[in-house]
Amino acid sequence: MKFPASIIAKTLGGTVEGNPEIEVSSFAKIEEARPGDLTFLSNPKYTHFIYTTEASVVLVHKDFVPEQPLKATLVRVDDPYASLAVLLDMVAKALRPVPSGIEQPSFVASGVELPEGVYVGAFAYIGEGVRLGKNVKIYPQAYIGHGCTIGDDTVIYPGVKIYPGCKIGQRCVLHSGVVIGADGFGFAPDALGVYHKIQQIGIAELGDDVELGANTTVDRATMGRTYIDHGVKLDNLIQIAHNVEVGHDTVMAAQVGVAGSTKIGANCVIGGQTGFAGHIHVGDRTTIGAQSGIPNNVAPDSRLMGYPAVPAGEFARNTVYIKRLGNLFDSVAQLRKDLDNLSK
Amino acid sequence: MKFPASIIAKTLGGTVEGNPEIEVSSFAKIEEARPGDLTFLSNPKYTHFIYTTEASVVLVHKDFVPEQPLKATLVRVDDPYASLAVLLDMVAKALRPVPSGIEQPSFVASGVELPEGVYVGAFAYIGEGVRLGKNVKIYPQAYIGHGCTIGDDTVIYPGVKIYPGCKIGQRCVLHSGVVIGADGFGFAPDALGVYHKIQQIGIAELGDDVELGANTTVDRATMGRTYIDHGVKLDNLIQIAHNVEVGHDTVMAAQVGVAGSTKIGANCVIGGQTGFAGHIHVGDRTTIGAQSGIPNNVAPDSRLMGYPAVPAGEFARNTVYIKRLGNLFDSVAQLRKDLDNLSK
Amino acid sequence: MKFPASIIAKTLGGTVEGNPEIEVSSFAKIEEARPGDLTFLSNPKYTHFIYTTEASVVLVHKDFVPEQPLKATLVRVDDPYASLAVLLDMVAKALRPVPSGIEQPSFVASGVELPEGVYVGAFAYIGEGVRLGKNVKIYPQAYIGHGCTIGDDTVIYPGVKIYPGCKIGQRCVLHSGVVIGADGFGFAPDALGVYHKIQQIGIAELGDDVELGANTTVDRATMGRTYIDHGVKLDNLIQIAHNVEVGHDTVMAAQVGVAGSTKIGANCVIGGQTGFAGHIHVGDRTTIGAQSGIPNNVAPDSRLMGYPAVPAGEFARNTVYIKRLGNLFDSVAQLRKDLDNLSK
Repeated sequence: MKFPASIIAKTLGGTVEGNPEIEVSSFAKIEEARPGDLTFLSNPKYTHFIYTTEASVVLVHKDFVPEQPLKATLVRVDDPYASLAVLLDMVAKALRPVPSGIEQPSFVASGVELPEGVYVGAFAYIGEGVRLGKNVKIYPQAYIGHGCTIGDDTVIYPGVKIYPGCKIGQRCVLHSGVVIGADGFGFAPDALGVYHKIQQIGIAELGDDVELGANTTVDRATMGRTYIDHGVKLDNLIQIAHNVEVGHDTVMAAQVGVAGSTKIGANCVIGGQTGFAGHIHVGDRTTIGAQSGIPNNVAPDSRLMGYPAVPAGEFARNTVYIKRLGNLFDSVAQLRKDLDNLSK
Repeated sequence: MKFPASIIAKTLGGTVEGNPEIEVSSFAKIEEARPGDLTFLSNPKYTHFIYTTEASVVLVHKDFVPEQPLKATLVRVDDPYASLAVLLDMVAKALRPVPSGIEQPSFVASGVELPEGVYVGAFAYIGEGVRLGKNVKIYPQAYIGHGCTIGDDTVIYPGVKIYPGCKIGQRCVLHSGVVIGADGFGFAPDALGVYHKIQQIGIAELGDDVELGANTTVDRATMGRTYIDHGVKLDNLIQIAHNVEVGHDTVMAAQVGVAGSTKIGANCVIGGQTGFAGHIHVGDRTTIGAQSGIPNNVAPDSRLMGYPAVPAGEFARNTVYIKRLGNLFDSVAQLRKDLDNLSK
Repeated sequence: MKFPASIIAKTLGGTVEGNPEIEVSSFAKIEEARPGDLTFLSNPKYTHFIYTTEASVVLVHKDFVPEQPLKATLVRVDDPYASLAVLLDMVAKALRPVPSGIEQPSFVASGVELPEGVYVGAFAYIGEGVRLGKNVKIYPQAYIGHGCTIGDDTVIYPGVKIYPGCKIGQRCVLHSGVVIGADGFGFAPDALGVYHKIQQIGIAELGDDVELGANTTVDRATMGRTYIDHGVKLDNLIQIAHNVEVGHDTVMAAQVGVAGSTKIGANCVIGGQTGFAGHIHVGDRTTIGAQSGIPNNVAPDSRLMGYPAVPAGEFARNTVYIKRLGNLFDSVAQLRKDLDNLSK
C-alpha cells in the first residue's frame, strides 16, 4: 500500500509543506529512513537528522521552524508522536491477522463457555469455572487457572500463566512469560530460624486497559487482593509483590520491584530498576528516576531520584558535590596547614 | 464456614477478650476488614487501625495493651502472624482442590513411574529416566528434562522448566516461570574478542523445603553443582548463577542476583535487588539491605547496606553526611574567607 | 571413560609434570576434587587450593611456579580455562543426546518445511510461514510465531516464545523463558494522563552465535528492528527494549536493563544489574562495573562504574572519600573552633 502525503495529512488533521503527492509505503526511524519511508520528529535530540534524512515524509510539530533547508516533505500536526501512533494503529490493524476459534490440541474444562470472537491457541489450558469475555485471545501454551475471570477483548500472549481465582479486566494485554497470582513471599520464621509458609489465600486483580510486559510477575495477596488499577502499563521483568496496589494510569519501566503491601498512587511515572520498600504509600503523580530506592512514604507530586531517593534537584547537586570531594579534602588539609602556620 | 472466637482461641492456644461467641467467616487486612472478618495485628505500623477496624476478631500479641477503647473481640496469642499462618493453612487446605492423576494430552517418557498421588497436568513433559516421589504435582506445561529427580510432595507450577539431570528435594514449591539448570554464563574470549562457550556439564540441585518465586532462575554448574540448601526461600525474578551455593534457611527478596561460584551462608536475610559479585563468601546470619552491592567476602552476623555495601549504621550516617555536603562546602569556603581575612 | 594425563596433555598441546599415566574420569572444582578428578587453576584466588587438592590432574598455566610441594600431576597449557573448555566440549558432545524428529503432539502449521536434523518437541508451536534452518532444535512448549526465520543449528530450549516476524541467526542458543519480539513499551499520554498504545510494528533480530540466558527479554521495535549483533552473549533476566542495538561480541551479566533506542557498541563487557538510559550511545570496548547507571553517551574504551557512572578509578576514590566523611565534618568543626579561638 502506498499513501500520498496529502492523504496522510488529511487523516491526521495536519497540513502538508512540500510535495503533497509524494508517496510513502513504510515507516522508519529518522536516522535510518530511505526514500518511500515516513518518519517523525518528536524528541529534540533527533532534530539534526531532519536535515539529512532520506525519508519522503516527516511528521513534525505544527510550530517546527527549520533552521536549514530540507528535502523531505513535512506534515505538520499537533503532536507528531500521537499522530504516528494513529498511523501505526491503522497499519497494525491492516497487517496483523486476528486469530479466533479453537486450535487443537487445547484443554478447555467442561462447562467453560467460549463467547464470540474467542481464540484458544494450541496447548492452552483453561481450568474449571473460568469466565471469558468476548473476543478474548488466549494464545498457545497459556494457562488460566480455575475460577479466573478475563474481561472482553483482553489478549493473553503465549505462555502467560494465571493462577486460580484471579481477575483480569477488559482490553488488557499480557505479554509472554507474565505470571499472575503466584504465591506472595510470606514466611514466618520459628525460634530455630526455619521459615514456615503463610498460605496466600487472596487473589491478584487487574483493572481495564492494563498492559504487562514480558516476564513481569504480579503475586496474589495473603488476604484480599493485589490490585493493578485501570490504565496501568508495566514494562518487562517487573515484580509486584502481594497486597500491593498500583493506582490508575501509572507507568513503570522495566525491572522495577515493589515490595509487599505498598500502595503506589495514580499517574505516577517510575524509572527502570527502581525498588520500593514494603508497607509504604507513594502519592499520586510522583515521578521517580531510574534505579532509585524508595524506603519511605512519598508525598504526591514528588520528583525523586537516588539511593536512598531524595528530590531530583538534590540528587543532581549531591552528584556534583561527590565529584568535588577530592578537592574538598585538599582544601580542608590546606586550611589546617595555614591555620597551624598562623597559630605559631 | 463460620467459627466463633472461642474455637479460634482454642485452636491457637490463645485467650479471648470480648465476645467469645462472635463468629467470623473470612480474613481481611486490618484496615479493610468488615464485620464477620478475622484480622491480625503484628506490624506496629498498623496498631492505630485496631481502634477503628470493623473486624469482628483480631489476633493480637498476648501482651498487647490497648491505649483506647476498641470494639473488636481480641484473641491473644504468642505470635499473631504465626497464628494467622495456622488459620490460613487450615483454610487453604479446606478450599483448594488437590489435583491428582494424569491429564491428557501430556508427555510421559516410557519407563517413568508415577507413584501414588502424582499429578501430571495437560501439556506437561516428563523426559526419560525421570524419578518422581509420591504426591508430586506437575502442573500443565511444565517440563522435566531427562534424568531429573523430584522428591516427595514437591509442587511444580505451570510452565516451570527443569533441564536434564537436575535434582529437586522433598516438599519444594517451584512457581511458574522458574527455570532450573539452564546453562551457566560461561564463555572464554579468544585473542580476537570472540567468545567461545564453556560447556556447562554440572547440575543444579535443590534441598528439601525450598520455595522459588515466579520467573526465578537457577543455572546449572560448569562442573559439580549449583546448590540451594534446605529451607531456602527465594522470591520472584532472582538470578542464581552457576556453582553458587546458598545455605539453609536463607531468604532473599525479589530480583536479587548472585554471580558465579559465590557461597551465601545459612540463615541470611537478603533485601530485594541486591547484587553479589562472583567468587565471594558471605557468612551465616548476614542481613543485607535492599539494593546493596556486595563486592567482597562478608563476615558472619554482618548487617550491611549500600553500593558498595558498608555496615548498616555507617550507611545511615553517610546518607546524612551526603545530605549535608552543600553546607560543608559552604563552611569550608567561609573558613577560607575568614582565615584569609585573619591572615591579612 | 578414563583418560591418562599423557593423552590429555597431547589433546591440549600441553606438557605433563608428574605421573603421565595417572587417569581421570571426571571434572571437579579444585577445592572439591577427589582422586580420579581433573581440575584447573585459572583464577589466582584459588591458587592456595592447588597444594591441598585431591585432584589427580590439574590444568595450570605453562609458567605456573609452585611455592610448595604438591601431589597432583600438572598439565601445563597456554590457557587453563580455554583448555578446560575444550575438554568439556568433548565430554558434552559424548554425553548429551542430540534430539531430532518430531514429537507428538506438536503443532506445525501447514506448509512449514522441516529440514534435515530438525527437532520439534512435544507441545511446541510453529506458526505459518516459519522458515527453519538445518538442525534447528525446538524443544517442548516453545512457540515460534508466524513468519519467523531461524538459522541453521540454532537451539530453542523449552518454553521460549518468539513473536511473529522475528529473525534468529545461525548457531544461536535461546534458554528457557526467553521472550523475543514482545511489544516495546510505547505509550503516548493524552491530556488527561491516559496512555494510548503505540503499535510496535517492527521486529527483533538476532545475528549468528548469539546466546540468551533464561528469562531474558528482547522487545520488538516500534519501527525497524531491535538488533543483537553476532557473537553477543546475554545472561539471565536481561531486558533489551525496543529499537536497541547491541554490537557484536558484547557480553552482559544478569539483570542488566537497556532502555529504548540505545546503541551499545561491540566488544563491551557489562556488569550485572547495570541500567542504561534510552537514546544513548555506548562506544565499543566499554567496560562497566556491576549495578552501574549510565545516563549519557559513553566514549569508546571507557571503564565506568557507579550510579551515576563515573570512571572506575574515580568511583573507587569517591567510595573512600565517603567512608571518611565523618572525619571531614569533624575536621571542619575543629577548624572553625580553632579559627574562632584564634580570632578572639
